[in-house]
Amino acid sequence: MKIDDESRSARKDREIIQAAAAAFVSKGYDGTSMEEIATKAGVSKQTIYKHFTDKEMLFCVVVQSTATQVNDIIESVTTLLSETKYMEGGLQQLARRLMAVLMDGELLKLRRLIIANADRMPQLGRSWYESGFERMLASVASCFENLTSRGLMRTSDPYLAASHFFGMLLWIPMNEAMFTGNSNPRSKAELEQHADASVDAFLVVYGGQSK
Amino acid sequence: MKIDDESRSARKDREIIQAAAAAFVSKGYDGTSMEEIATKAGVSKQTIYKHFTDKEMLFCVVVQSTATQVNDIIESVTTLLSETKYMEGGLQQLARRLMAVLMDGELLKLRRLIIANADRMPQLGRSWYESGFERMLASVASCFENLTSRGLMRTSDPYLAASHFFGMLLWIPMNEAMFTGNSNPRSKAELEQHADASVDAFLVVYGGQSK
Repeated sequence: MKIDDESRSARKDREIIQAAAAAFVSKGYDGTSMEEIATKAGVSKQTIYKHFTDKEMLFCVVVQSTATQVNDIIESVTTLLSETKYMEGGLQQLARRLMAVLMDGELLKLRRLIIANADRMPQLGRSWYESGFERMLASVASCFENLTSRGLMRTSDPYLAASHFFGMLLWIPMNEAMFTGNSNPRSKAELEQHADASVDAFLVVYGGQSK
Repeated sequence: MKIDDESRSARKDREIIQAAAAAFVSKGYDGTSMEEIATKAGVSKQTIYKHFTDKEMLFCVVVQSTATQVNDIIESVTTLLSETKYMEGGLQQLARRLMAVLMDGELLKLRRLIIANADRMPQLGRSWYESGFERMLASVASCFENLTSRGLMRTSDPYLAASHFFGMLLWIPMNEAMFTGNSNPRSKAELEQHADASVDAFLVVYGGQSK
């Protein structure tokens, strides 16, 4: 019985987090009320306060939970890439996957919200930076370290190489999305073309002998 | 007399824009009142409305004017670099200068404000993207085109090369600053070390024969 109770409570938490994420993304942090989240999640306001203390804490949990989901996807791709024999194709696949995951419209809105509130809620931005941004860099860096030890890449600083990989890939599309809101997003084909061109340049610096 | 009047009016505009920039950066867009800007600039609220229509328009003018100032600095550096004989040192100087200019605390706060309001004021973000972000890329791209024609660089796509230059240089520090507010900024020495390391990697891809 205890296990059932726990899983019911975990399911409720997940439903509240999902409802909160949707509300924050569509109405912003200030524009979202706990009442609205409660209605969307089909629970009472009291339940939300009992589980998550207050709105700021709930927003932090949404950000943490999103960071974990994104990282799980990235890690599944880097794990595959660490074992690849075909460096160029594997890296292209990683670049396209990162592009698709990170340029998702809902995620971009959440990212903009985190930046908007970074001064007011320093803990929130710090938490996204550490468990989202830096963990993602670390996953890719660890994959590059493996590839280097297998002679498929050359780098003495895998973390710097990972930051170059992300920067070459995302500097234009990510900034465009941050500054211009969600209007005129680039097509999937354009983003993939940009990803491929960035992988080509990246391989000139960091590609190993057997690329 | 007419010229004197015009220059007096231009000076007043500049004072209003400076007061507005300081107020927006310190209190955010919503937290800033036209009354406060008027007091800081030593003019009446009516004068501000007469010159700038409303708060949103004034914010757009602040953003435009900042974009112009930043671009003027960048262009003066790229003009020098276009004529350099010492590619590696010149590029290092450009990287360090970009780092210093773009990682300035006040500019970072304004950048965060633009992103925060991008959905609500699409024209604002679009204007920063075009007259700030893209123009800066275009200046650097045009410099890279010159260097390529002089055999000091190799690239068939100077704009893509410029985006790689910015991305390699700024992916970590810019995102860290966006997400973590202005707490724990990196030291000048750390930023310069990161700039130098990124220039080294960039030159492997894009350096010419004579680097």
